[in-house]
Formats: sequence, C-alpha cells, structure tokens
Amino acid sequence: MAEFASTAPETETLTVMGGGLVGSLLALYLAQHGHSVEMFERRPDIRRAGPVEARSINLALSDRGWRALEGVGIAESVRDVAVAMHGRIMHSVQGQLTYQPYGQEGQSIYSVSRAGLNRRMLDLVEQNPRIRVAFNQQCQRVDLRQQTMDVLDTELNQSRTVSFRRLFGVDGAYSAVRAALQRTDRFNYSQHYLDYGYKELTIAAAPGGSWALEKHALHIWPRGQYMMIALPNLDGSFNCTLFFPFEGPASFAALQTPAQVRAFFEQEFPDAVPLMPELETEFFDNPTSSLVTVRCYPWTYHDDVLLLGDAAHAIVPFYGQGMNAGFEDCTVLHELLARHGHDWNAIFQEFQQVRKPNADAMADLAVYNFEEMRDRVADPRFLLQKKIESKISAQYPSKWLPLYSQVTFSHLPYAEAWANGQQQEQIMQRLMPHIQSEEDYQRPEVQALVAAEMERR
Amino acid sequence: MAEFASTAPETETLTVMGGGLVGSLLALYLAQHGHSVEMFERRPDIRRAGPVEARSINLALSDRGWRALEGVGIAESVRDVAVAMHGRIMHSVQGQLTYQPYGQEGQSIYSVSRAGLNRRMLDLVEQNPRIRVAFNQQCQRVDLRQQTMDVLDTELNQSRTVSFRRLFGVDGAYSAVRAALQRTDRFNYSQHYLDYGYKELTIAAAPGGSWALEKHALHIWPRGQYMMIALPNLDGSFNCTLFFPFEGPASFAALQTPAQVRAFFEQEFPDAVPLMPELETEFFDNPTSSLVTVRCYPWTYHDDVLLLGDAAHAIVPFYGQGMNAGFEDCTVLHELLARHGHDWNAIFQEFQQVRKPNADAMADLAVYNFEEMRDRVADPRFLLQKKIESKISAQYPSKWLPLYSQVTFSHLPYAEAWANGQQQEQIMQRLMPHIQSEEDYQRPEVQALVAAEMERR
Repeated sequence: MAEFASTAPETETLTVMGGGLVGSLLALYLAQHGHSVEMFERRPDIRRAGPVEARSINLALSDRGWRALEGVGIAESVRDVAVAMHGRIMHSVQGQLTYQPYGQEGQSIYSVSRAGLNRRMLDLVEQNPRIRVAFNQQCQRVDLRQQTMDVLDTELNQSRTVSFRRLFGVDGAYSAVRAALQRTDRFNYSQHYLDYGYKELTIAAAPGGSWALEKHALHIWPRGQYMMIALPNLDGSFNCTLFFPFEGPASFAALQTPAQVRAFFEQEFPDAVPLMPELETEFFDNPTSSLVTVRCYPWTYHDDVLLLGDAAHAIVPFYGQGMNAGFEDCTVLHELLARHGHDWNAIFQEFQQVRKPNADAMADLAVYNFEEMRDRVADPRFLLQKKIESKISAQYPSKWLPLYSQVTFSHLPYAEAWANGQQQEQIMQRLMPHIQSEEDYQRPEVQALVAAEMERR
Repeated sequence: MAEFASTAPETETLTVMGGGLVGSLLALYLAQHGHSVEMFERRPDIRRAGPVEARSINLALSDRGWRALEGVGIAESVRDVAVAMHGRIMHSVQGQLTYQPYGQEGQSIYSVSRAGLNRRMLDLVEQNPRIRVAFNQQCQRVDLRQQTMDVLDTELNQSRTVSFRRLFGVDGAYSAVRAALQRTDRFNYSQHYLDYGYKELTIAAAPGGSWALEKHALHIWPRGQYMMIALPNLDGSFNCTLFFPFEGPASFAALQTPAQVRAFFEQEFPDAVPLMPELETEFFDNPTSSLVTVRCYPWTYHDDVLLLGDAAHAIVPFYGQGMNAGFEDCTVLHELLARHGHDWNAIFQEFQQVRKPNADAMADLAVYNFEEMRDRVADPRFLLQKKIESKISAQYPSKWLPLYSQVTFSHLPYAEAWANGQQQEQIMQRLMPHIQSEEDYQRPEVQALVAAEMERR
C-alpha cells in the first residue's frame, strides 16, 4: 500500500472498470500521470486461464495503435509477436489470387493475438506500483449520484459496494457503466446490428509449422453478399472469419448439417477447404456472433464518469480499427492530461467533443469497408481504380493520400479522413471513365484531367 | 371469475402491460375478439386521483385516432368533450395574427384532455366483463424465457411474479417490457433527444368562461429557433407549451429568475403575457421535460411479446400524431386479428412488418414539422406556397393531397404520405419561383407548368 500513501496531493485514486486492451492501456497512461489506479475486470485473469480460454482472435494493429503502445514503452515487445501484412490477397472461386498492397513500400498492418497482447499489457499493469488490479469483478450497477458501484466477485459470489471519485468506463460494447448513463435524461443512444453474423474457423499450419498461404497478407474470399477472411498467426496457422447473413438462401440458417457446410465451402471456397481439417467441427462448435455498432452521447457524467473505447463507440470490425480507435482514445486523453493537468472537467469535455465526431466517422467507415471487402475487391475496375489512386498519390504526395492510408497509416482525425476520402471518391468517379488500363494514366489527356483536379484541391 | 371460465377454447388470457390511452384501447379490441385480458397499470387509477393529479395535457385527435375510437364505439362520447381546431393562428411579435386552415372546409383536428380521455376509456375497460385491470402495478423485470414478469404493487410495496402466455408491452416511451427485448441479441434500438425541452403553461379563461383567443384554432407563436403553442380547453382556458432550447442565449438555462421570465415573455410573446396570470409561478413550478424519439426493432419476441404505441415508437409531439399513431396500431392489430384468427405468429410478424416503416416515417415527419411550426409558418412565402398547394389540390383532387392532409385527414400509411409529401415539395420548389401572389396561380404560364407537373404524376 506504500504507493497509495506516497500519492502527491494533486493526484487522485482513479477507478477503471474494465481490464481488456483499452482498459489496461488507459490504466498505464493514468499511472504515468502520477495517479493511483484501481482497475476492475469482469473476467478471470487471462494469464492464469487454462487451455480452454477464449478462442484466439486476431486483431490488426496499425499506426494509431502503435503510437499509443509506444507511449507506454510496449511497442517493441509487441512487434516481436506480430505478423506484418503488406496487403490483401483476394481468392476467387476458381482459386485465382489477386494482390493489392495496403500502402507504400514498407507500410503494413500487423496481425496480433488479442489474448497475447492482453497478457503482455496485464504484466505491465501488475508491475506498475501505482495500479492495483482485481479480476472476477463484475459491475452490476453504478449509482451516479452516490458515486458507488455494486461489484460482484464472481469467484466468491459476493457483492460489495465500491466508492469512486472518478470512474473510467472501459468495459466494452455491452458496458455496465454506460447502462447507468443511459438512464439519465437526454442521453442519446443507439445499438444497431448488421443482418450478418460471423464465425471463427481455422486454416491449419502446414507441416513443419510453415504457412499454407502467403504469410504476410490478409486473405479475402470476397463473394458479393458475404466473405471469408484469414489473418496469419505466428505458428503457421491462420485465423479465419466467415462473415455471413443470418437468414436467406446463403446464410447461417441455411447450413444446418456438416454435409451442407462442406458442400457450401467446397463450392464457394474450394482452395481453402483442404487447409481446414476441422471445418465442420469448428462450424458447429464455435458460436455465431453478431455485429453491432453502438453510438452514444454524452460520454461523461459531470467530471465523475468518462466512457472510452467500445463502451463509448463499438464498431464493426471491417476496417480493423476497433482496437486502434480505443488505443487512440488513450493517446488523446494522455495529451489532454498533459495540457489540462487536474482540470478534469476540461479534460472530460474536450475529450468527448474531440473524439465523438471521429468515433462516428470511424463507425461509418467500418460499415463502408464491409462492402468494399466482400464485394468491390473482386471487381477489376475497383482494383484498377486503387492502382490509379496509388499513382496519383505518388505523383501528388502533398495533395492525395488514399483513404485507406489516411485511416490506417496516418494520425489524421477519422472525421477528416472520411471527408477527404469521400471527396477523393468523387474525383475518381470523374476520372475513371477516361481510364481503361494502368497505362492510360500516362496519356496526356488523362494527365491533364488529373492536373486540373489537383489544381482545384 | 365467471368470465374466465366461460372463455371459448380457442381464446386466451392475454396480458397487457400499460393502461394508458393505447393500452386501454388495445384491451378493448382484444376483448372484442373474444380474449380475456389482464391489464396492469403502473400509476394509480387516474379516475380516483385527487386534484393534484398530473397536469392536464391536451392532445390533438385526428382521423386515424377517431377511426380507432369508432371501432370500440367510444368516438361519439369523446367528440362531446373535444374542441375542434380548424386551423393554425400564428401570432407575430407585433401581435399580428395570420390564419392557415388545416384542410378543406369541415376538416379539423380536435383538442382533447389526455386525462379526460383516459378516464373515459378506463370506464369502458372496467365495464367489460372480459377485462380485469389492476393499478399501482409496476413492471420491474420481464423474464422472456420463463414468460414471467416481476410486478411491484406500489401501494402495498409487495413484489410478485406474474406468468404470461402472451404479453403486450404498451407501457410507453420508457417501456419496461422493451427493456427486456433490448437485452436479447440483435435488438436494434435508439433513443435520440432533441436539444429542446418543453414547459406547460396556461392561458386563463376570460371572464364568464369564454375564450380569450379564437377557440377553434391551434395558436402558434413561431420565433425561429423556438415557439409557444396553445390548445383550447372546454372551460375557456388554453394549455400552452413553450418549446425552447435547453442551453444558449435564449434558453431554459438563461431564464433563472421570475423577472427574467417576465422580461423575455414580454419581449417575445407580448400579446400572450396579459392572458397568463400565473406565468412566473408556473414557469418555475412546472417541470422542464425533454423530447425523445425512440426507434427499435423487432417489436416482438417470438409470438410471446409484442410492443405497441410509444413502447415501440415514441415520437416528438410536433405533428400531433403520437396518440393517433398508437391508436392506429390498435386498428391494424384489430384487422390482423380478424384476418389471422389465432395464428399469433402471423399476427405479430405482419404487424411489425407493416407498422415499422410507418412508425419510422412518422418519427421523421414529427421532427420535420417542428421546424415548420417554429420557423417556416412565420414566412409569407411559405404561407403562399401552402395556399397554392391548396389550389392545386382543389383543381387536381385525384393527384394532389397536401402532406398535412395525408397525415392528418387520411388513413394512408405514414410512409406513403411522407414519400408523396417529399415529391410534392420538389414540385413546389420548381413552381414557386414563377409565383409571387395567390393570383399568379391563374396565369396561363403557371397553369401550364402545373398541368405539366400533374401530367407526370
């Protein structure tokens, strides 16, 4: 307890509800600013969980996430267990492969294990003398006026009331802290589900632990109304996810038997099936999960409570930005803590005012990218357009950064990226009718059109 | 209990949570189809409440509401206590009055007291041998799987568990039944608040119980960013509502003292102030209420639970359609009960599929009409456009019904009305640049333009 006694008078004991990726990172940042932190996590300590722990899920770390990890000195050690993905590889029904780089030479997104990353961050949290962490602590109810929360210890099956002065709700898409805000007057809230679910599957490692598909890529099987994707693991396997309608002729509802699953996969993903020895078992053992976008506002209750991460803005996974956006929340809060010191009202207000439009833009971008991934990447005209955009970007680097790069390889606010991206798409709609091949880009009349468009920007 | 014993084998005991206007009407319709009904209401019996009952609020009954009341034989007795409003009267800051009729000659909306209407309907409910009603029954929790709800008797302060086979959630904008659906997977939900609140005020009856303003009108003081309205009561008084921003230079937050309230009203509503003897007292005694739009889907849980009225689709009050939409829910359900008999799955599914797009359209229309009432009705060009529309409608009755009439004086599905209204607005945008006065409508070139537009419809 020495660390609490030594707390400087202007620092506080802060309460963090949620010890997932964003909660752990947040606790580290708050401690960095001299505060004592009490962190509660609903689940058991993932580091002590047996082999039956949650299925391993992969996340795509990109620049916004890396910057946030760098701020707490953890980036290098994470990079050691991340697999770089330089681009997308599309698999046609006929097994034909098409490659699309994500950015310029040397730019990649990184496949990391959610569980592995969380373990590493919890180690750091536990080593930090300013942070005290408790697992199996389920928040059942928050009393905003009394500034208390009822917490159930799920191991002991005992409830107790915990007081807080300042509570950070980082408890995910189904946040219990947000539920308390939702009962206050004038709290705007929406939860919107896609008509699609997802199921996790596995492409096994090749003999000797090598990769059966190109390791440094994100693989996509785009099929118009649905898709499968695969992200590489360190051990040679790939984590696959099938994004698929709940209902309809091709849907989860339509695949009821192992034979139906096999027939469907052999027809739609024939090059993947031989690499998925556990296909039918996994299909019926693993849950079908839903895809929700949560928006709300305000994210604060006075200067007592602040929501961050999925609790404030849960998004669908198609841009690989859910974790990155939550990590960027921590970067922004870190900057505000540095700027406003202990003026929590200023910190909380500016945080939500700055982040809300960006979170909304990212939510829109994530839904937009689903259509791109499941449908447009299979269209040669779309891929040609991406190549032309890349050429424009190379020729006019100060005037043009492709939307994907703005989101993934820059720190531009998401709302600006989305607005720029929509403007750029309009320009491409004007240019593409004049372009039938990559070579056309050099034609003088096309060059003149591009120059005129750039002149106007 | 004889009535339950005599229930025909194909009928059921149905549970209705909520005994407000829509809940009472629903119970009457369900009983009409031979079912036994158990109705629970959270509040005390409004008929036994003392003089301190809820402030009297007026509602605008229009054609959809009347049809639903006719179906249970209550329309005529309600008409006796309703005040017809033939149009809007706008009050300028200078006290100038402008009249705009709502529809054709003989078409009106009707000001009725919410409490009075509810009392009348509860009398009918209680006289019905198939309906059993209990007051002071607060639904605390619905267990969808067990088909039970925990109900607190707020008089006895005792909780009990009530089983249901089929539950109708008619418990308003903050529905407890909906809260249970919200915890199921893939339940889409949003609650969105306007930045405006409202406050109820009173224009007193003139000496002798006469009306100090024109009785047969809805009065509006449109002031751009806010407005006051007044609806007539039977006793000569008017119920006023101030719709006003929560924050800002002219807002509830800015009016903190009786002197500030008086100064503001004297500046903005000078012709009303002398008629409001209790202005300052009411302003500070009456609550400032918020304005929410609630959307959700599905409205069902299997064939066990169905949401209706505000529980399914709470809207802001600016089109006077909240109650009418809830009553129309009952009309639609009544038709489906007649068509599908005891196939509850068919009834529930068709109900939500038919009503959801109409409820969404009505929610949009209600927000749209706020801008019209607080701002556009003060614009002479807008009023001219309404007059021209009325002339088009008279000349081409089969091709043109003004949007307001479609919503208020027809039974066209709201979604169709809204779509038609938007098309008609586009036509008016093309016509109005050619029209500077009412007389211009007869000019040959304008007549030709109108004829050409009608040709295309």
